[in-house]
Parts: sequence; C-alpha cells; structure tokens
Amino acid sequence: GTGLVQLVGAGPGELGLLTVRGLRAIEAAEVIVADRLGARAVLDQLETERGRPLDAEIVDVGKHPGHHAVPQEGIIALLVELGRAGRRVVRLKGGDPYVFGRGGEELAACRAAGVDVEVVPGITSAISVPAVAGIPLTHRGLATAFTVATGHDQIAELGGGRDHTVVLLMGVGTLANSATTLARGERGAGCPVAIVEDGYGAGQRVTIGTLGTIAAQAARRGVRSPAVVVVGDVVRLSPYAPAELAVD
Amino acid sequence: GTGLVQLVGAGPGELGLLTVRGLRAIEAAEVIVADRLGARAVLDQLETERGRPLDAEIVDVGKHPGHHAVPQEGIIALLVELGRAGRRVVRLKGGDPYVFGRGGEELAACRAAGVDVEVVPGITSAISVPAVAGIPLTHRGLATAFTVATGHDQIAELGGGRDHTVVLLMGVGTLANSATTLARGERGAGCPVAIVEDGYGAGQRVTIGTLGTIAAQAARRGVRSPAVVVVGDVVRLSPYAPAELAVD
Repeated sequence: GTGLVQLVGAGPGELGLLTVRGLRAIEAAEVIVADRLGARAVLDQLETERGRPLDAEIVDVGKHPGHHAVPQEGIIALLVELGRAGRRVVRLKGGDPYVFGRGGEELAACRAAGVDVEVVPGITSAISVPAVAGIPLTHRGLATAFTVATGHDQIAELGGGRDHTVVLLMGVGTLANSATTLARGERGAGCPVAIVEDGYGAGQRVTIGTLGTIAAQAARRGVRSPAVVVVGDVVRLSPYAPAELAVD
Repeated sequence: GTGLVQLVGAGPGELGLLTVRGLRAIEAAEVIVADRLGARAVLDQLETERGRPLDAEIVDVGKHPGHHAVPQEGIIALLVELGRAGRRVVRLKGGDPYVFGRGGEELAACRAAGVDVEVVPGITSAISVPAVAGIPLTHRGLATAFTVATGHDQIAELGGGRDHTVVLLMGVGTLANSATTLARGERGAGCPVAIVEDGYGAGQRVTIGTLGTIAAQAARRGVRSPAVVVVGDVVRLSPYAPAELAVD
C-alpha cells in the first residue's frame, strides 16, 4: 500500500487543545514520530484517558535529559523511510507545524521522495500560552497587531509601540538583550512584559514586569525554558499583572 | 445554578480543526451564540456528521445578507444575561478568540458581571489559511518572524524584509495601499504575495503575485473578502506559486 505522513500540530501540550482531525490521525496511525514536551504530553494524556496504550508504535525523537534530540536530517530520513514502506505515520509536533516547527522542510522532503504528506494545523504556543495567562494578543484600544519571533532575531528592526504586541518564543536566554533593544524604541522601558513558563504544564508560572525590570526579575526568580515572552500593553489585562500595571 | 460562558475558538471553518475541548463544550452547551461564517460552518458540519441537530439553542449574531450583525454591545449584554440566568453558554467565534476576536472584551464584561467565563483557544485563520495554500509563516532560510495585522493599520511602521512574513486579515479593501506601503521598504516591489480567499470554504482560491502586481491581479480576478493576504518569501513555497517565483 501507499504510505501517508501527516504532520500534526499537537498544540501547547494539553489534550483538549488538540484538533479533532489531529486526534483522529493519532488514533489511526501505525507509527507516531513525536518530538518536544508538548507532543509527548498529549500522547500521555490520551493514553491515560483511553485507559490503554495507543495502537501505534511511538518513536520519540525529542530531547531527553542526558540524551540529544534526533537531528532534523535523521527525522526527515525516518519519515521518508516509513512513508516509502507504506506506513501510516503521524509526525506529532508541539504547537503548529508551520510556526517555527520546521514542518515546511519535512513536507518538502516527503513530497520530493514521492511520499503522500499533509499538514494538520495545531494551536500555536505563541497565542495559546499568553491566553492561559489571560493575555489576548490583540484587544480593542490596546493592540491592533502582533509579531512573533524567536529570541533576539529581528527585534532590532521591529517598529511599533506598545499597541503592537511582540511574542518571543525560545527567548529566555536572550531576554536581557531583547528587552534592552525593544526599550530603545517607541515602547520605552515602562512597556509591560510577561513571561509564561511551562504553559499548560505542571510548572506553569507567570512573571510580569516591564522592559526595564524584566531581566532582573527573571534572574531573581530563576526563569527557565520553555517560556513564552509577551511584550505590550495587552499584558496589563492579565489577572497576574500587579496593580500599578493593571487595566482598571 | 451558576452559569458558565465559554469563549470558544471555532478555527477557520472546518470541523476537523476545532479543538477537542471546543467540541465537548459545544456538545454540552445549552445555548450557542455563534458569529461569522467560520463558526456557523463548524456547527453545520457537526450537525451533518451527527445526523441530528445539536441539543443547544443556537443564536446567530453574525452578518447575513441583508441583515446587520448584532452589535458588540448587544452580544456582550446577551452573554451576561444568559450567564446570570444560570445557562451553560458557548460563545463560538471564528478563528481564535484572542486574535482580532474581541474575546478580551467579552471576558472582561462577563467577569465584571460576576459570570464565570473561560477562553478555549482556536486555530487562527492567520496561520491556518496560509497553511491550506501550502504556505508556512516561518521556514528555515526563508522567514524567521511574522507579523499579523488588519488591513492597513501599522503597516507603515513595520520594518523587516522578505524574511519577515506579514499576514493581513480583512485586508482586501486596503490591498493596493498596503502593497504600495510595504513595497517602499526593504521588501521591494518584487516581494511575493499570496491572497487566499474563503480558506477551507467552497470558494477557496489562491492568487499569487508580487507587491508590485497584486493589486491589479486582485482587481482582475475580482478578489473578495473573506481573504487572508500573506507577504514574504514563504509564499514561494506554495504549490500555487508560478514558476518564476517558486523555490526550486
């Protein structure tokens, strides 16, 4: 038979935020190639809810403590091999396959190898992790656009003020630099910032400050990856915002 | 009893892209307050798949041909009234409640009125509609950040080049202006642009050109709302891209 590779977005790591189509793909899969904490967490929750293991063989290609992740070339080679062997494969990725998920590369490789492949969108952490902290990325009177970037990349050239929300993924390591850069522009040092660690996970924690204070706060609280950083006036809507920042 | 209002993101209008939690909320609701084409389409597909109507009463507050939409104040008043009456309510919104969905306003109003309220994220059209045209918002070597805005707002101050993807929602009416403005910057008139009309709907159609040509193409093809506009080198990955723009 002909194989099929489905690149499925697992969402932020909560079974309820998987899509209906993603769930059906997982239940029909023969092999699941899972990466990242979010994807693995969804499979664990699904098996708990079912009360029995999934039928599929699960290949875990994410990072483990003490182990390196399988490199991207290895993942692509595996998907192509499984697809050519006629297997029904789910490639389960945290968030959305097309938002910093390298889904485009995996799609292109499968297609070039003659393997049927499709993308099933997922809920990106860029939007859903701020949401779990009560922060909408847009809000009438507070924000009318948003930008998503990783770490420090492309922050320097980014225009806009506090009504243009900025979301940084994988931004903990470069937080001090990013905050300094963003504070230099129209946003200023008083612009509100939230860090949401381990969104939807057991270690979920929200830290709120300003571009001028956030790096010191993060150091003091020992903020760690995975975390999503949100910059802009929408942060004031969070129930975690201190009184001096909060919207009345 | 105490009421509950759930602000549920319906996704782009395909039942399979509703979340598991969103589906369960709809099935448990007593009243569903639905707006926009996307939300209504999902309910129709769900009733077709079940083979019988939903148990909930459906209140349609979206625009119909010849009718105005219920104004936002009226929707908020309805949610608060239903919640206070102890009803279990789903407020079903196209895309994600927190991305140009005015979910933050509805949440704040319910909370202020003492009505229990929660947000269930959905798949935003800003990401999933480009995806259905084969366009990832980020891609190694082609794009490392993306910005989502409506129409012409905040386009002028937006920095970045073709590796910073721009998504315009509700941008058909202002397309010519937006394209001219974006072409003035680092992106240039040759920067690829895609318009995806009626994503996931019966009238889905993809038009691809450049910032220099897209307004004339859109006029010639009679491009209409709802449509998502994507600007940047990622457009070259679409199978709809003409040979001279396509990535080899």
